[in-house]
Amino acid sequence: MKKLCDLCYGIVGMGLMGGSIAKAIRGNVLGVPSARGHILGYDINAASLELAASQHTVDAVYDARSVDKMLAQCDFVYVCLYPHATVQFLKDHRDAFKPGAIVSDISGVKALIFASLADIVRDDVDFIPGHPMAGSEREGFAHSSGDIFRNHNYILMPLAQTKPENLALFRSLISAMGFSRIVETDARVHDHKIAFTSQLCHVIASALVDSAEDTEVTAFGGGSFEDLTRIAMINAPLWTELFIANREELLLHIDKFMHSLESLRGYIEESRPADIEAYLENVRTRRVAMNTIVSKAGR
Amino acid sequence: MKKLCDLCYGIVGMGLMGGSIAKAIRGNVLGVPSARGHILGYDINAASLELAASQHTVDAVYDARSVDKMLAQCDFVYVCLYPHATVQFLKDHRDAFKPGAIVSDISGVKALIFASLADIVRDDVDFIPGHPMAGSEREGFAHSSGDIFRNHNYILMPLAQTKPENLALFRSLISAMGFSRIVETDARVHDHKIAFTSQLCHVIASALVDSAEDTEVTAFGGGSFEDLTRIAMINAPLWTELFIANREELLLHIDKFMHSLESLRGYIEESRPADIEAYLENVRTRRVAMNTIVSKAGR
Repeated sequence: MKKLCDLCYGIVGMGLMGGSIAKAIRGNVLGVPSARGHILGYDINAASLELAASQHTVDAVYDARSVDKMLAQCDFVYVCLYPHATVQFLKDHRDAFKPGAIVSDISGVKALIFASLADIVRDDVDFIPGHPMAGSEREGFAHSSGDIFRNHNYILMPLAQTKPENLALFRSLISAMGFSRIVETDARVHDHKIAFTSQLCHVIASALVDSAEDTEVTAFGGGSFEDLTRIAMINAPLWTELFIANREELLLHIDKFMHSLESLRGYIEESRPADIEAYLENVRTRRVAMNTIVSKAGR
Repeated sequence: MKKLCDLCYGIVGMGLMGGSIAKAIRGNVLGVPSARGHILGYDINAASLELAASQHTVDAVYDARSVDKMLAQCDFVYVCLYPHATVQFLKDHRDAFKPGAIVSDISGVKALIFASLADIVRDDVDFIPGHPMAGSEREGFAHSSGDIFRNHNYILMPLAQTKPENLALFRSLISAMGFSRIVETDARVHDHKIAFTSQLCHVIASALVDSAEDTEVTAFGGGSFEDLTRIAMINAPLWTELFIANREELLLHIDKFMHSLESLRGYIEESRPADIEAYLENVRTRRVAMNTIVSKAGR
């Protein structure tokens, strides 16, 4: 049985997520005195690599010309790129992975990953798609932190051919990084659920900021507007890609939300207190019943 | 010049807000050794009064039969009731206030307060309407805390006859309670802005929970859904009253929000990446420009 603290980890893309994953591994997995493992980092941005090396987040850095040398050494490769770039990278470097390696990604939408599976998968490499449900409104390695995963969810979408021992190893890595709940599902369910919990929320937060009369309105804020719109400090290129890649599921949820909103709007317009109160009581009961492990303190 | 630490404070309604205000005054104003002031509490709920007395949040408690005796002693009265109950209380007990007293309220909508001004105001009592922009998704005195006001906004709507020295005293009390920003405006501007920053946000959060397929969906959450819907653990009777009392302003903002949402929805439906990205870049710029003093840590 492989020991997590003795593995060689490769991080492809040292941005906010890649950096945070590297730091969580450094702190929670390689922090024991007996650890023989190490972390290698690849990015096309030389400044991110320099920073990661100077902070000892990674033990060695690789660029576009040397990345295949990195992949050849890694027992575990984390591809932390945007969705389309993830597919492209996995295709382009398919032959470079070390035999027996576990490879995973962090793409927020999986349909396009699974559509390219035939060009990605290799018999002797275990590709286990995943989605760490954590992030930040700030971008880049400079804002990465090994602590953003505590009390968060991780979604895994193992393939039919995924080896049980590799899945077990990956699950123990995820727990070690600080995640509290691991959900195993398939790409279809993932994309459907994520369209609601993540993409719809970003659409709503963005529309709410767009509809503000001015940027001075926060002088009248009590925390609600701030909480609802923190995620509107959005990475526009990434979310544009996610919205379009998961377009059909997202439209479904937007329409369902608008329908709910129109019901409540109607009750308010017609001044129907009993209907408003029943609507809100039901909402309160549902929200209280939702088992949220993500706490403010944990973010 | 009156000293805040020597005043007699009366709290009408020892719920979440009344209790929190009493605790903030107890801790931040009457906490000095030389303080000669005290806090009196009134509620129709005997259990809340008992708890407030046993925790030494108030020095004496009053019920419906004795509340006028309380009002007769108070230099500063905080009416912490729902909007319509606030108007009713101020009318019913108009003659009981101590001459020279300052009276304020916490109602989240002001049109109905100002519509009844003729029946509320007395020449020898300074009624200064206000709105502390803080709260909690939990209700009742048992959940009150003197710390919920830190880094929050307070909106004041002084009347034409408000005495400058009373306004100055009130402002110093607000600052002492922990609020960081005091905005002075009128009822019309207040109700218009609050319909956006507060009521619209509660409508959106409620509709989002209403549109959820099931209560298990949070297993796929990464914090966004949780942040957007915390306020959906809503006090249904209170918010029903607020939505209807501020109906016209709220409908205006709901429609503006739906218009913004429909634009973004259209870009997604038509797969127009350049338009989505431009929309999101603009939203990000606006949100970053918003001066939010309300921090997560402060709540």
